[in-house]
Amino acid sequence: MLAQVSGILLIQHGFLSTFLLSTHSTQYTLFNPEFKVLFNSYYNGIGEQFTRANRGSLSRPSLKEVIEYRTYVDKAVIELLDTDFSEKLKQIVVLGLNHEQQHQELMLMDIKYNFSVNPLFPKYDSVNSLNLNDESYLEPIKYTDFEQAIINIGTNLGTNINTLCDRKFAYDNEQPKHQVLIHPFSFANRLVTNAEYLAFINSGAYSNPQYWLSDGWANIKTNNLSHPLYWHCINDEWFEFTHYGLQPLNLNAPVCHVSYFEASAYANFTNARLPTEFEWEYAAQNYSINDAVQNQFMPSRHRESNSIEQLADACWQWTNSAYLPYPGFKPIEGVAGEYNGKFMTNQMVLRGGCVFTPQNHLRNTYRNFYYPHQAWMCSGIRLARDKV
Amino acid sequence: MLAQVSGILLIQHGFLSTFLLSTHSTQYTLFNPEFKVLFNSYYNGIGEQFTRANRGSLSRPSLKEVIEYRTYVDKAVIELLDTDFSEKLKQIVVLGLNHEQQHQELMLMDIKYNFSVNPLFPKYDSVNSLNLNDESYLEPIKYTDFEQAIINIGTNLGTNINTLCDRKFAYDNEQPKHQVLIHPFSFANRLVTNAEYLAFINSGAYSNPQYWLSDGWANIKTNNLSHPLYWHCINDEWFEFTHYGLQPLNLNAPVCHVSYFEASAYANFTNARLPTEFEWEYAAQNYSINDAVQNQFMPSRHRESNSIEQLADACWQWTNSAYLPYPGFKPIEGVAGEYNGKFMTNQMVLRGGCVFTPQNHLRNTYRNFYYPHQAWMCSGIRLARDKV
Amino acid sequence: MLAQVSGILLIQHGFLSTFLLSTHSTQYTLFNPEFKVLFNSYYNGIGEQFTRANRGSLSRPSLKEVIEYRTYVDKAVIELLDTDFSEKLKQIVVLGLNHEQQHQELMLMDIKYNFSVNPLFPKYDSVNSLNLNDESYLEPIKYTDFEQAIINIGTNLGTNINTLCDRKFAYDNEQPKHQVLIHPFSFANRLVTNAEYLAFINSGAYSNPQYWLSDGWANIKTNNLSHPLYWHCINDEWFEFTHYGLQPLNLNAPVCHVSYFEASAYANFTNARLPTEFEWEYAAQNYSINDAVQNQFMPSRHRESNSIEQLADACWQWTNSAYLPYPGFKPIEGVAGEYNGKFMTNQMVLRGGCVFTPQNHLRNTYRNFYYPHQAWMCSGIRLARDKV
Amino acid sequence: MLAQVSGILLIQHGFLSTFLLSTHSTQYTLFNPEFKVLFNSYYNGIGEQFTRANRGSLSRPSLKEVIEYRTYVDKAVIELLDTDFSEKLKQIVVLGLNHEQQHQELMLMDIKYNFSVNPLFPKYDSVNSLNLNDESYLEPIKYTDFEQAIINIGTNLGTNINTLCDRKFAYDNEQPKHQVLIHPFSFANRLVTNAEYLAFINSGAYSNPQYWLSDGWANIKTNNLSHPLYWHCINDEWFEFTHYGLQPLNLNAPVCHVSYFEASAYANFTNARLPTEFEWEYAAQNYSINDAVQNQFMPSRHRESNSIEQLADACWQWTNSAYLPYPGFKPIEGVAGEYNGKFMTNQMVLRGGCVFTPQNHLRNTYRNFYYPHQAWMCSGIRLARDKV
Repeated sequence: MLAQVSGILLIQHGFLSTFLLSTHSTQYTLFNPEFKVLFNSYYNGIGEQFTRANRGSLSRPSLKEVIEYRTYVDKAVIELLDTDFSEKLKQIVVLGLNHEQQHQELMLMDIKYNFSVNPLFPKYDSVNSLNLNDESYLEPIKYTDFEQAIINIGTNLGTNINTLCDRKFAYDNEQPKHQVLIHPFSFANRLVTNAEYLAFINSGAYSNPQYWLSDGWANIKTNNLSHPLYWHCINDEWFEFTHYGLQPLNLNAPVCHVSYFEASAYANFTNARLPTEFEWEYAAQNYSINDAVQNQFMPSRHRESNSIEQLADACWQWTNSAYLPYPGFKPIEGVAGEYNGKFMTNQMVLRGGCVFTPQNHLRNTYRNFYYPHQAWMCSGIRLARDKV
Repeated sequence: MLAQVSGILLIQHGFLSTFLLSTHSTQYTLFNPEFKVLFNSYYNGIGEQFTRANRGSLSRPSLKEVIEYRTYVDKAVIELLDTDFSEKLKQIVVLGLNHEQQHQELMLMDIKYNFSVNPLFPKYDSVNSLNLNDESYLEPIKYTDFEQAIINIGTNLGTNINTLCDRKFAYDNEQPKHQVLIHPFSFANRLVTNAEYLAFINSGAYSNPQYWLSDGWANIKTNNLSHPLYWHCINDEWFEFTHYGLQPLNLNAPVCHVSYFEASAYANFTNARLPTEFEWEYAAQNYSINDAVQNQFMPSRHRESNSIEQLADACWQWTNSAYLPYPGFKPIEGVAGEYNGKFMTNQMVLRGGCVFTPQNHLRNTYRNFYYPHQAWMCSGIRLARDKV
Repeated sequence: MLAQVSGILLIQHGFLSTFLLSTHSTQYTLFNPEFKVLFNSYYNGIGEQFTRANRGSLSRPSLKEVIEYRTYVDKAVIELLDTDFSEKLKQIVVLGLNHEQQHQELMLMDIKYNFSVNPLFPKYDSVNSLNLNDESYLEPIKYTDFEQAIINIGTNLGTNINTLCDRKFAYDNEQPKHQVLIHPFSFANRLVTNAEYLAFINSGAYSNPQYWLSDGWANIKTNNLSHPLYWHCINDEWFEFTHYGLQPLNLNAPVCHVSYFEASAYANFTNARLPTEFEWEYAAQNYSINDAVQNQFMPSRHRESNSIEQLADACWQWTNSAYLPYPGFKPIEGVAGEYNGKFMTNQMVLRGGCVFTPQNHLRNTYRNFYYPHQAWMCSGIRLARDKV
Repeated sequence: MLAQVSGILLIQHGFLSTFLLSTHSTQYTLFNPEFKVLFNSYYNGIGEQFTRANRGSLSRPSLKEVIEYRTYVDKAVIELLDTDFSEKLKQIVVLGLNHEQQHQELMLMDIKYNFSVNPLFPKYDSVNSLNLNDESYLEPIKYTDFEQAIINIGTNLGTNINTLCDRKFAYDNEQPKHQVLIHPFSFANRLVTNAEYLAFINSGAYSNPQYWLSDGWANIKTNNLSHPLYWHCINDEWFEFTHYGLQPLNLNAPVCHVSYFEASAYANFTNARLPTEFEWEYAAQNYSINDAVQNQFMPSRHRESNSIEQLADACWQWTNSAYLPYPGFKPIEGVAGEYNGKFMTNQMVLRGGCVFTPQNHLRNTYRNFYYPHQAWMCSGIRLARDKV
């Protein structure tokens, strides 16, 4: 675990060391040439890889060495930018910082997963004043209607790292901006709650193939799944493992850490469906995204309003869109081009953001993506319907 | 093998026995109640299943019993329709016949695969007068341009089995007809040939991660793949296993039995891409589909023309579209509703048709689908490009 | 299944074709050179192999071709022996015939297994006059005491194929004859019955780790085992799948098709143990082996006597001896030397014989061997105890 | 890694906490009841287990907590023994201390393995004055002859924990002392060296099935093995990963970290065999065991003498004996009885001791055991021969 956190810290700066310093600084010498292999669990283009499965057994470099390494890289980055503050270099740094923000969220996900398999259920943080177990009445989901329209999807910042603009950033997979024809649909005003998901479980849904995709049914049967990843039923009471240790299940909070298979089955159960990523982006264009509450590691209950809520401040939301290139998609040039495009099979898009996501990492056009069986990210359920 | 063919023959009539006779005939008694379990490798909704993996070890019922069973079911179907020739029953029969046509293609695929792993390379048929090894000059691929448009996709025959019209048929997954906004694109006039694919291999592509999707690279490395499924390199010469046994590779014929991973990597190699299924359907609306040559089990070389060729008479064509529901999709009602919708994850759409497909099973709106690693169906490569 | 039986018939004669005819006949031409690959699932020393896992998908050569092939080989063997009836050739033929006898038993095992996974539970033969469901009283197991002794184990026919004597035969793994010091022990007069094994099950043994070897516990938990391979509990009644189809469990008959793990756990449950292979051979030297009833595919109940019964006419008996070389062991010379020695890890010895074994294939010194998790051979339980 | 070491430290004292304090002290309260689950990766008899595979992801309890826990248990043990210094309790403590010694060796093995998969090849210790790369001449192996004999094997300290004597200790699996008839054999005077094993590799042995057991050949082919676990060939030079980091291969030192499959194949290559565990024990009865050099983590080269050397001061030595119970074997009573007996399948006995083993943990009768594919313990090769 320490190894994994150290590893993530190391890999973050590996990006800057490899794609900025080694490529653009004539002065730069590697802190430790071997670190390159450790860093490279990902990029087939830059040589020998250290497989991810082995990462858990890495106990060196020590945390101390990793911090020294990061200080070393930070210093070299600043020195390089002092002598060459060109657009070109700034853009690589911006890409590197966004990359680092992704790893900040991954670190919180890994810590949660890691602690969750420990029978001691360690706490990452203390609860303080959070009201985790609110039992007040919650209104049923309301749907907002959207008419057929041709809308703009994505953004246009350019896919060449050399033309990324100064203050704005978007990944290549959000580009280019293009038109999409949307059919009439209705969009839920909030996420599905733990109470609602519990009713699904209690209906016997994990024993009833009718709600499930074929691969989803195979997945829950092969792995003996009968509830979301971090739920525990102890003496007939439901608990949820969190960064605050094991907590009684908060019935009004959004269900989180569900797989696409579970989200899709739940939607079938309620005669609804998941939105497409285009429907989601269209809804988000019309309703402001509330900032996530900082330093809190669990999504809060829905605050009643006339708006569409919980777009980015609670859980990522599974969409019914496969992760595929936009029309006209061009990967970032160079080795960093492996970043996004090569994952465009077998994964589904999630939209929004969650309580683990750095706040200024969020935007309407952002496309997150995971395999349909995965649930260790903070993923929830937004419902939609065909409008008839 | 005999077991598998018997099994398919059995399963085909299982559809009629279960969904037509057992449900709508008061007179019908099952030929053998145990056959129900054998038949049910597929429908979670109708009880205990016999797993597909075990099918290879089935040696009973014998071919003789299966033929008796089919005769028995045929007779019962005719008797039922004699007394009740309602729309409702006709529609079930139509669905059953289309189902049976799919299994006819599957049987040819299974026989080919089965013979292919036998070191004796048995022949399913003799070559006769086929010109398998044409070495005449072939023009390079030409691209036809299509402008931005809003087009109709799919068909509108209705998703309720009770409202299927008499002479027309389409599966639920092709419905409803709906509008899609298409961006400008160019579409190749023919499929990629064996010669072209061989150049890709000879460039070292199976050792070069840059062309491959991440899951695709993992797939070819894990399984030590270095060429299409049925190719063999013997003493530096290339051969292809076919229904006519092992044959020298016909360089002008379309490459077939490639996975989506291979098709996608090949497209990257040529700076092209695969078409979306909407682009494919739009192109097919504008160019007639030539009938496949019957009783031939290998795709022929491209016939030069000014048209777009090989749409349905050679190989299925991988598209870059994930297999997902159309807006407004409704599964067929009842247990037969498991037919299509539950496979809508992790698979990619193929369009067209191939030399194994019954001729009147083809139509522009038809959506075939397989997992991206699969190649035992007759799948080829149609290229497309963004029009700039 | 047909494929498997054809395969076995083919492989049997493959032995004679490869080790007798191809090596010693100047006239012999191969019936079909490709058959060599099919045959070679076993011998690393004679070239490219066809993996066993793929055998189930072999549908060619057809049964007709296999019979032609066998006739062809038989004829060539007779012609060769007509011209050269030397000891050397006779010995290869003797080895080949013993090899063929082993495959006769394997064929009965494979047919049973194959039919057993078919939900139709086909019958290989009709029961006729067998009394399968005898419920008369059976005396408890009695133990015969043996004192400490130095005994002869194994036989001395020689390990060089050139010195095998004319009418006698033993495999290399039974050789050489050597002395073993035996400690005082007691040996059960009959095999454990289905009724006794059922009491073990009903005690909750499959949920109680205390009786099981560590690998055995993992085996039954991983594979969800809760009873012997061919047992079925249907509406609270126990049945056993047999060559005569599904039959009510015969409580007095010996339990069969148990793994070593099950045999060992059962012995622990009764505070007994399994005998060593040396104890077994010593007991068999002192008590005659009854001939197995021919044309019967299920072991019969114990016939009361003052002797030690069911030594070779019911089930093979797991011993607590790992399959290892005897002191002075020498593999047969040449490629046929791969026959036995290379399996001498991870397997346990079984002694005796069973209802599937050709009668003149049995002898006191015979060493059968299987992996401890396997149960598709006809394996039962003989108990022993330390004599105190 | 830290997690694993913490885990081992935790588990060691778990033994005392569970089998001594919880059972025999009325005062004792658990330091943390949850630790019981962490501790229990092993004993099916004492409740819910934490699977070994998950151990790598344990990051809590922290090292600090583990040390507090150990101090707590140590104190409680001393207090208990102050009030009850009975034979019974002393014996549990003795068993616990021997158990702890085994974990000391395991910790060195785990650290080595863990560091070895790290591409930085971290050093556990600095080399100091060790002469790692001695290239002086080494005499070929000499064999000592032993005649046929009836010898005593094992020891007789009693299998009931209540009758263990005060100062002597032996595990249940070494008991009882019993007679074994040994056939004439010859025993090598030293272990096989790296130079000798290298000649085996250079002969093409890893591509030649003739030397290998069937399971061994499958093992090296499935895992692409071509040399011992910690060897690396870098620019045509051989290195070995050690506790001192990557070091040039010391040609005169004994080959270590070989699997049983490799040891057995090497023996076949030289027309020798591995000794039985009884032959090994007999040889050790006649030649004194030299003390291992302390604080050294690599075996030294053989020192020429007229004796049999390297019995316990270099590497454990694979024997050709499966790990099975001795005649009259009785497991320790109670839950601690799971300690040894339940592993008595599929493993092979190693005899001797190695440079990682605590010195007073060694004795002639000690039986170590591992699966034949394992090599992360310090295992080497002693040759033997039939004496003719």
